[in-house]
Amino acid sequence: MRSFHVATGQRNQMIEITDEVRRCVAESGVEDGIVTVFAAHTTAAITINENADPDVVRDLNVHLSRLSPEKGDYRHAEGNSDSHLKSTLVGASETVLLNRGRLILGTWQGIYFCEFDGPRQRTIHVKVIGQ
Amino acid sequence: MRSFHVATGQRNQMIEITDEVRRCVAESGVEDGIVTVFAAHTTAAITINENADPDVVRDLNVHLSRLSPEKGDYRHAEGNSDSHLKSTLVGASETVLLNRGRLILGTWQGIYFCEFDGPRQRTIHVKVIGQ
Amino acid sequence: MRSFHVATGQRNQMIEITDEVRRCVAESGVEDGIVTVFAAHTTAAITINENADPDVVRDLNVHLSRLSPEKGDYRHAEGNSDSHLKSTLVGASETVLLNRGRLILGTWQGIYFCEFDGPRQRTIHVKVIGQ
Repeated sequence: MRSFHVATGQRNQMIEITDEVRRCVAESGVEDGIVTVFAAHTTAAITINENADPDVVRDLNVHLSRLSPEKGDYRHAEGNSDSHLKSTLVGASETVLLNRGRLILGTWQGIYFCEFDGPRQRTIHVKVIGQ
Repeated sequence: MRSFHVATGQRNQMIEITDEVRRCVAESGVEDGIVTVFAAHTTAAITINENADPDVVRDLNVHLSRLSPEKGDYRHAEGNSDSHLKSTLVGASETVLLNRGRLILGTWQGIYFCEFDGPRQRTIHVKVIGQ
Repeated sequence: MRSFHVATGQRNQMIEITDEVRRCVAESGVEDGIVTVFAAHTTAAITINENADPDVVRDLNVHLSRLSPEKGDYRHAEGNSDSHLKSTLVGASETVLLNRGRLILGTWQGIYFCEFDGPRQRTIHVKVIGQ
């Protein structure tokens, strides 16, 4: 298992981690299999989406906050129930295919760490499973 | 493959299954790899979220039902289209990393079975894949 | 790794691909393990839901579009920010268990490719990992 950290700077922020995941895959020496990327936090998530136009990430964050607003009928006293809901909607992990040493991603796909309750120091774990 | 059952008592209910998953992992004898937890139902799901304050789970259920209300412009005659939508939003499975015999979960992370159309008897399957 | 294509005919459309995934599994020769099905696109997704009553899929599409409407406060100039959001909400992949040569799916569960910005030609990748 390999792990790395990201330091987030805003309450809601998507940070591309494709290069970090590729580095973990290269270090593993595995050429064919799958790669699971896991966020070890209940107010964060991993997703795959477009890494070309930064407005896509802006729109994702604005509209996730429309679906899960910061203020609402919440009982959890820490004031971050919206962050927990986003985490469950987006999901704690993504699994990506590995073929002949390359991550199989579409032309515009990047792997993102999603911060929903920052700024914080966060940990991401990566496991590469050979075929 | 290992399987176990949960009996749910409400229409919407999240039941922590981390201990059951740990038992499946221990029985498998695998020390390093990944663990996929799968809900074999179209009106249920698996998620990972906080297992410390029960208000988090309460808030998740209330706000999932705000996003996917029981009544609406639905055609499916069984009256559980909201449950099917929640299942697709949350997802039928979670994959967790396994390192040196331990599930790699963050401090507050627990694995939950999500019932969206209970009460029912439900089946969860677990597969442990070695590295 | 195995890949196949689907041609979608509408902007929003769910197409069942369970048979195609089963064919990939049979070709792999693996009897026990997991199968990851991956959509190589940022405006599409993979989900598991009911394949008996087609009204379930109709209701899913209508209500995903209610949560992520085509028009809104979007900056991304391509006019498909709603499609990107749906992709992140539903997720780019599903992992299914494989036991004694059979995909482990519940009675009503089918695997679906979700088109959110069609019509288009799309690519789906499948990786089978033995236990």
